[in-house]
Amino acid sequence: MIKAGIIGSTGYAGQELVRLLLQHPDARIVWYGSRSYIDQKYSDVYKNMFRLADDRCLEENMDSLCQEADVIFTATPQGLCASLVNEKILSSTKIIDLSADFRIKDVKVYEQWYGITHKSPQYIEEAVYGLCEINREKIRGARLVANPGCYTTCSILTLYPLVKEKLVNPHSIIIDAKSGTSGAGRGAKVPNLFCEVNENMKAYGVTTHRHTPEIEEQLGYAAGEPLALNFTPHLVPMNRGILATAYADLMPGVQEADVQEAYEKHYGKEYFIRLLGAGGCPETRWVEGSNFVDIGFRTDKRTNRIVAMGAIDNLVKGAAGQAVQNMNLLFGLPEQTGLQLVPLFP
Amino acid sequence: MIKAGIIGSTGYAGQELVRLLLQHPDARIVWYGSRSYIDQKYSDVYKNMFRLADDRCLEENMDSLCQEADVIFTATPQGLCASLVNEKILSSTKIIDLSADFRIKDVKVYEQWYGITHKSPQYIEEAVYGLCEINREKIRGARLVANPGCYTTCSILTLYPLVKEKLVNPHSIIIDAKSGTSGAGRGAKVPNLFCEVNENMKAYGVTTHRHTPEIEEQLGYAAGEPLALNFTPHLVPMNRGILATAYADLMPGVQEADVQEAYEKHYGKEYFIRLLGAGGCPETRWVEGSNFVDIGFRTDKRTNRIVAMGAIDNLVKGAAGQAVQNMNLLFGLPEQTGLQLVPLFP
Amino acid sequence: MIKAGIIGSTGYAGQELVRLLLQHPDARIVWYGSRSYIDQKYSDVYKNMFRLADDRCLEENMDSLCQEADVIFTATPQGLCASLVNEKILSSTKIIDLSADFRIKDVKVYEQWYGITHKSPQYIEEAVYGLCEINREKIRGARLVANPGCYTTCSILTLYPLVKEKLVNPHSIIIDAKSGTSGAGRGAKVPNLFCEVNENMKAYGVTTHRHTPEIEEQLGYAAGEPLALNFTPHLVPMNRGILATAYADLMPGVQEADVQEAYEKHYGKEYFIRLLGAGGCPETRWVEGSNFVDIGFRTDKRTNRIVAMGAIDNLVKGAAGQAVQNMNLLFGLPEQTGLQLVPLFP
Amino acid sequence: MIKAGIIGSTGYAGQELVRLLLQHPDARIVWYGSRSYIDQKYSDVYKNMFRLADDRCLEENMDSLCQEADVIFTATPQGLCASLVNEKILSSTKIIDLSADFRIKDVKVYEQWYGITHKSPQYIEEAVYGLCEINREKIRGARLVANPGCYTTCSILTLYPLVKEKLVNPHSIIIDAKSGTSGAGRGAKVPNLFCEVNENMKAYGVTTHRHTPEIEEQLGYAAGEPLALNFTPHLVPMNRGILATAYADLMPGVQEADVQEAYEKHYGKEYFIRLLGAGGCPETRWVEGSNFVDIGFRTDKRTNRIVAMGAIDNLVKGAAGQAVQNMNLLFGLPEQTGLQLVPLFP
Repeated sequence: MIKAGIIGSTGYAGQELVRLLLQHPDARIVWYGSRSYIDQKYSDVYKNMFRLADDRCLEENMDSLCQEADVIFTATPQGLCASLVNEKILSSTKIIDLSADFRIKDVKVYEQWYGITHKSPQYIEEAVYGLCEINREKIRGARLVANPGCYTTCSILTLYPLVKEKLVNPHSIIIDAKSGTSGAGRGAKVPNLFCEVNENMKAYGVTTHRHTPEIEEQLGYAAGEPLALNFTPHLVPMNRGILATAYADLMPGVQEADVQEAYEKHYGKEYFIRLLGAGGCPETRWVEGSNFVDIGFRTDKRTNRIVAMGAIDNLVKGAAGQAVQNMNLLFGLPEQTGLQLVPLFP
Repeated sequence: MIKAGIIGSTGYAGQELVRLLLQHPDARIVWYGSRSYIDQKYSDVYKNMFRLADDRCLEENMDSLCQEADVIFTATPQGLCASLVNEKILSSTKIIDLSADFRIKDVKVYEQWYGITHKSPQYIEEAVYGLCEINREKIRGARLVANPGCYTTCSILTLYPLVKEKLVNPHSIIIDAKSGTSGAGRGAKVPNLFCEVNENMKAYGVTTHRHTPEIEEQLGYAAGEPLALNFTPHLVPMNRGILATAYADLMPGVQEADVQEAYEKHYGKEYFIRLLGAGGCPETRWVEGSNFVDIGFRTDKRTNRIVAMGAIDNLVKGAAGQAVQNMNLLFGLPEQTGLQLVPLFP
Repeated sequence: MIKAGIIGSTGYAGQELVRLLLQHPDARIVWYGSRSYIDQKYSDVYKNMFRLADDRCLEENMDSLCQEADVIFTATPQGLCASLVNEKILSSTKIIDLSADFRIKDVKVYEQWYGITHKSPQYIEEAVYGLCEINREKIRGARLVANPGCYTTCSILTLYPLVKEKLVNPHSIIIDAKSGTSGAGRGAKVPNLFCEVNENMKAYGVTTHRHTPEIEEQLGYAAGEPLALNFTPHLVPMNRGILATAYADLMPGVQEADVQEAYEKHYGKEYFIRLLGAGGCPETRWVEGSNFVDIGFRTDKRTNRIVAMGAIDNLVKGAAGQAVQNMNLLFGLPEQTGLQLVPLFP
Repeated sequence: MIKAGIIGSTGYAGQELVRLLLQHPDARIVWYGSRSYIDQKYSDVYKNMFRLADDRCLEENMDSLCQEADVIFTATPQGLCASLVNEKILSSTKIIDLSADFRIKDVKVYEQWYGITHKSPQYIEEAVYGLCEINREKIRGARLVANPGCYTTCSILTLYPLVKEKLVNPHSIIIDAKSGTSGAGRGAKVPNLFCEVNENMKAYGVTTHRHTPEIEEQLGYAAGEPLALNFTPHLVPMNRGILATAYADLMPGVQEADVQEAYEKHYGKEYFIRLLGAGGCPETRWVEGSNFVDIGFRTDKRTNRIVAMGAIDNLVKGAAGQAVQNMNLLFGLPEQTGLQLVPLFP
């Protein structure tokens, strides 16, 4: 039984981790960390957990926690994990960081886009980018896993085979992404009030969103060269779900069948990736509550572009589900353990 | 492994049954019945089921089905189950009927409220009303279980201890209920279109809703005498969830502690009923996707009334979850088998 | 041209007042008061107002304001209007207070339910309760109008003819009300976040909501005797709209036709009240954006009760629209001036 | 007083026309046409219109109608207007067609994308494309106005100055559009049910949506050469609103100030277009219920692209509002007559 501690258990991603770990056959939560709700019962913060998780929230002390936990999940604001981690902790426990602290290899890029100084750049090199379908083998032996962002997971997985197989011009990529509001977190801010989000659609962080360099870095590895792209997130009046609509110029001579083949080659055996094929349009409702990534595409002969689309549940495959998938890899469990959740509809 | 057949598997309740049975350790679906989608892949009708339930839909032939299934769920329009059931079927399989056909003992009341002639009244007496927390023992030995309605499950469970313990005047009951739109089914009707339901709140079936006599009958048993009550359903712009707000006059001298005690007496050991106590207000979001019933109440000295509130997920405890709970009882499994679902939030 | 000042113009009710006054042919806004946004452009706070209301927000100084404005609307938290008003102000301008400060005649009741000390009880007697359809004549000559609450407007208008004409037992009234989330205001609070409200239904303030004594007082006047009732508000995942479902015991011998007649007698000539008649069920969507009150009802011979239902837009007839209606009365304008808004659907 | 007839008055766009015309000071509706609801009261079909539009629906007889109406609006399925119009009608009345029949000048393109044979191609040349801000002068003298589509209005207006002023490569355009569900019409179809749309985000009509050639044609005129582009519509769980996020490669040397200048040059004096400037992100909620088009943009030096965004209310500027704007032009009224609606929020 894996003993798991969660730092930041009272945000939406943290709560989703609790939901998944409570249903995981080989894991047990030993530490409900929370800065805001210390000593309160977890189920008073999230009443869905009444009688399921009635433990009290504890402070976010990673030094104590690493003594008790086999794995620590940090679902915390940017900068916190980097400020807490040290050699003693890493040598006694595994860390799966849901923040962005260890996702980007170039510390300058991190500091520029996030606007903060990185507190432990010495661990960046060691950290493994936890996109399981791409980095599976590296993850197994890691001490520190950088769990990918929600938009990035969806965007990278949607485009990876196209870029890797050189079916598209890597400098032509445009990603127009749409997210449910849980991605904005549980902070009490006017723009996230019901009446402000409901009956509305907007873009935000246009040309400046922090997930941009993360996507660029990973797709750059696939392309074998650096690339820049446009990424535009939008806020949708729904709780969960991310849809990424990606556009790219097809390389000369590329046919729809080539695209289909590339997806099959890379994802054909992946449990969590469901290929809808040419003409298939993924919808967020079909993956809600599950760790699935649904991917479809369509090529356009008129413009010689491809429109590739991916859908995930931002809190599952985009955060807590992928974190559990990483945990399974770290501890040698079958990757799907505790994650064979049937999507909830309607 | 219980072999389960579903007649009406392509409605919302049927689909929820599929979701639950796919995650049930001791059951297997052998028959996806559907009048509208014969020969189509189930996962083409509900794309969340892609790669999880790719079987083709079969016709709704109960005679064939009873040869193959240990239990048949009928999630069908009123009248269908009653028109299909016969001795041969009942002697070879168990039936859990999610329609209203066998819920009401007085066939005249059924025919009056539903406006149809009952096709097999000879089985009404035998059928057991499948409200597990109340009728557990009778269910175990049944051949034919009448799975309760969604509004009725929520309403009866909220009021049962108060009526049973004679804490309220049984002739003073008013139930104001609110339901998510999945309760209206998947039929293509203008009033259920997104733009008609969204940003709207309305009552419907005022004084005439068919769940009224079902609630009255069951609470009448608890009271030891017939009773009439007001039941008003409302349609809420959300997918899932029922909230019942019930009002009744307290009997002379009844204190809040008496109420609390009655709830504890009847439900204190129930896994699926979570008592929020005096002042607790259940919310549908805290039970979404689960089989829980959350119940709270408040007494009002100014008016000498009680306001008792219950919340369920209409598709789970209000339909498919309770059906699975009944199946577990019928087959001697622990009642929670396959139903320990953590509510999904947000 | 009436010069109007608004104290508290940056809350939802204040903004709705701005919307209505901008479209009013005989009024002009001279003061956009706001505690939080002083010196900011109004249209930066509400971007729908871009190029329509680009004035800067001013402090909430009623002494200065009364020099410039013919009428002052106070759309402010409880207690503020009472703390600002004085003889000099009242003698130079009209005040329409959208808070509860002057709604309740018994200052003890006010202080008990609101938990604050009333700062100017000397004006309570003079203040007129601004429910236009009931108090029209008194309003015309008033200096200080207490604009009714949203729930109370809907509840009182729905029940008034029944109580006034003694068709129901005034001690049997139960009001189950449902409101859109704009009623909760624009404060940044976790319970009002999109993900907390969406896909949820809950009751709140059960037996303790502050609108209870206001409804009781006004219906008590109609009954000719004090009465107590149950009022239960619920939060609905929609922006606008209140639906009140009211229950009461019919007095002996009362028929449906008597009820219809009572409604016709009191409201038959009212422009803003639309009677749907017996069997009519009002829906909030049909009044959205307008000042209408839609009322329907159904009597139940089985229980000898009536279910009466009313629907309003909480920000219009429940707040800003009624305030403008009061302004029209105060200044001798036709009551519908600027308020003949066709409801917006969908 | 302009006498207006509406063919197709009971769809969502038709109903919005009714709302706007009822509030128009110089127009009067003389014909509520409807195929489905003949002889029913209009307000029984749309209960928001109770006591405002209680006339009965009439058949869709354009020959009779042209005798009674000064202007006929056709808010009907593709092909109907083209099948009804003739010289007699056009010589006695004005027609504003909200369908696509006369939007596309090349009849082959129309027939290919719409899959129907055009019944009166002889009027295509004469018809004026009713995008008021671009074609104002031509519209004034027209007999037959082709009212633009919702997506197209938003897309074209967002991109027009950029293309016209040659600031972007016209062959690099990608438009990712998001629409509220009223755009899907009031037909009773499963995919438009509340539970299917709510909590979901999806693309549809990828590379094949019929608004594509309409956008291409109009932007081609602006570019002075034919162009092809990618247009991807998405369905959003909200009632109203379209957001278009458009991407294009900037021509060499183009600066943010050039873009701003181009927008100012073309739209600086337009009442209905509100320029949010560089960095401004339009949101659908800020234009809801109004005829405004809000436009913002941001240039990206990293990729040398521009992201231009436009927001409209699909039922107003995207349909009925623009139709009324066209009517005002046809009849020599100030263009804003009856359209100075303050956006409704929240």
